[in-house]
Amino acid sequence: MPGAVEFWFEFASTYSYPAAMRVEALALGAGVELTWRPFLLGPIFAAQGWRDSPFNIYPAKGRYMWRDLERTCTRLGLPLARPSQFPRNGLLAARVATAAAGAPWRADFVRRTYRANFVDDQDIAQPAVVAALLGSLGLDADEWLGRATSDATKAQLRAAGDEAVAAGIFGAPALRVGDELFWGNDRVEEAIAWARSCR
Amino acid sequence: MPGAVEFWFEFASTYSYPAAMRVEALALGAGVELTWRPFLLGPIFAAQGWRDSPFNIYPAKGRYMWRDLERTCTRLGLPLARPSQFPRNGLLAARVATAAAGAPWRADFVRRTYRANFVDDQDIAQPAVVAALLGSLGLDADEWLGRATSDATKAQLRAAGDEAVAAGIFGAPALRVGDELFWGNDRVEEAIAWARSCR
Repeated sequence: MPGAVEFWFEFASTYSYPAAMRVEALALGAGVELTWRPFLLGPIFAAQGWRDSPFNIYPAKGRYMWRDLERTCTRLGLPLARPSQFPRNGLLAARVATAAAGAPWRADFVRRTYRANFVDDQDIAQPAVVAALLGSLGLDADEWLGRATSDATKAQLRAAGDEAVAAGIFGAPALRVGDELFWGNDRVEEAIAWARSCR
Repeated sequence: MPGAVEFWFEFASTYSYPAAMRVEALALGAGVELTWRPFLLGPIFAAQGWRDSPFNIYPAKGRYMWRDLERTCTRLGLPLARPSQFPRNGLLAARVATAAAGAPWRADFVRRTYRANFVDDQDIAQPAVVAALLGSLGLDADEWLGRATSDATKAQLRAAGDEAVAAGIFGAPALRVGDELFWGNDRVEEAIAWARSCR
């Protein structure tokens, strides 16, 4: 849709962290409508024969990524502490973000979850960690964990994965403007400018 | 070396094209010394189990790359015509660029070779094509093809590949400033700014 950008993100994805922290402010500044699109990279990587993050499978690429991410976060003024475990399973958090479509606190939950993983070294795969994040937003954690793990939400997140593949998405973050795809934290500005010029 | 940047490039590499076309002007503008470092990605990819470009092995990534490269070249004001064959074997051209270390026409040869591949759809693997590029620079093609295929030059290019691996290089283009590594056309400006601030 011209004038609108979809932000496809995965909580385990390193470069999704700086992108997620700034995409809303940039979209707002440009007058571009933003839609958060949680999805899972695991099934997409598995279809390519990868059972782990490519940053672990290819050590030189992984070493580079951590240093580049450090420089990038410094440049953007974002805190970063390399997680003691990588990747962390973002399934439950992605289900919460899926169940929270339309909720006013959704973007805050997304950013707090990235911060938990990439700044506070918390294991976002743990229900107690996700519950604490929900609690920090003044929400009823049990209620939202229930919604997050409902069959409807699970099916919705699986459908988002299928939609990602159909859209040509192969990594995260990815930004989609109509049929145009932009990949990576490096393309956030270009995607938003594209959406603005298409409006 | 602080104040200096090494530009590692492979003639088959798509994102090396826009980087190679602009790196010298950017380095000159910043007062940063530039060293052209031809090398081959083939052996590095082979060590990771890839017998082809990852852009061919992973079709979604390849489709994205061509579209992204098109947008990138448009943004930078560079011509681009998708080559009818990809990747093209850059071995002979890399040997010429290796033999030409110190020659005043080296950077022009590099840029003309990229243009031949990514704008004029010429097969840079063919000696006749490389000979014509050398001829267009007013050089004796036979003499330089002879130097390019000497045992000394071959050994030098192989040694550059070993040096690339030791430096942690896993793709092209790569820019090195001391021990800092920057990967991709997206990092050309950052690498040069890094070199300038380190001087």
